[in-house]
Amino acid sequence: MTQPIPESHRDILDRKALAHLATLMPDGRPQSTPVWCDFDGTHVRINSAKGRRKDRNMRRDPRVSLSLCDPDNPFRYLEIRGEVVEITEDGADEHIDQLAHKYLGVDTYPNRRAGEVRVIYKIAPLGFTKMG
Amino acid sequence: MTQPIPESHRDILDRKALAHLATLMPDGRPQSTPVWCDFDGTHVRINSAKGRRKDRNMRRDPRVSLSLCDPDNPFRYLEIRGEVVEITEDGADEHIDQLAHKYLGVDTYPNRRAGEVRVIYKIAPLGFTKMG
Repeated sequence: MTQPIPESHRDILDRKALAHLATLMPDGRPQSTPVWCDFDGTHVRINSAKGRRKDRNMRRDPRVSLSLCDPDNPFRYLEIRGEVVEITEDGADEHIDQLAHKYLGVDTYPNRRAGEVRVIYKIAPLGFTKMG
Repeated sequence: MTQPIPESHRDILDRKALAHLATLMPDGRPQSTPVWCDFDGTHVRINSAKGRRKDRNMRRDPRVSLSLCDPDNPFRYLEIRGEVVEITEDGADEHIDQLAHKYLGVDTYPNRRAGEVRVIYKIAPLGFTKMG
């Protein structure tokens, strides 16, 4: 059951806060990696490229967690536990440019690699931890 | 088999980089939370308080992951996958003060709560992902 983001910490998702995404490896161990993200009003969206470890992990097991600190106050943070409910290539090139605009202030994602296929993962928030 | 931290990214552990710790919930879902950490030459050490969620998670399942970004370059990061090999209260009060010194530049951890029992978790590094 998708939960609304707590109003008290909703602002962190609109700021340049890197999210640290935890996924599950094939043997159930956690894997953690910094990612850009945004919020579409219902789902938290991240963007990766097909074939990467986190891509393979989320396709195998949709259970994830994201933690984000307030860039101005590391004691204030939000953890979002949830599940990947949609994985799509539709709009993923535009989405990574939108994230580059959010985080870098540029119009085009500067680190694109030849041949990579960008992918959007939509995460339904199911539970939260918040501090500060 | 404990692995040495990659020399190329070893400096991040000495800096004021928050680590995001991923642990496993009882049902195997990942949980992620920002933590302070340091490195004793062999193990990455974090510090929490008895009874908290991450304390309970690490006592049940020692498999964890930590991701840390270079504070000056978020494209440069280190992920450390490992296992908690020791959990101890010995020296944990001094250790949280050391971490407060590292991260805040103060001599005494300012957020201590009455009655809490501080705990050190020593994490053996087993695998890495690095970027930048």
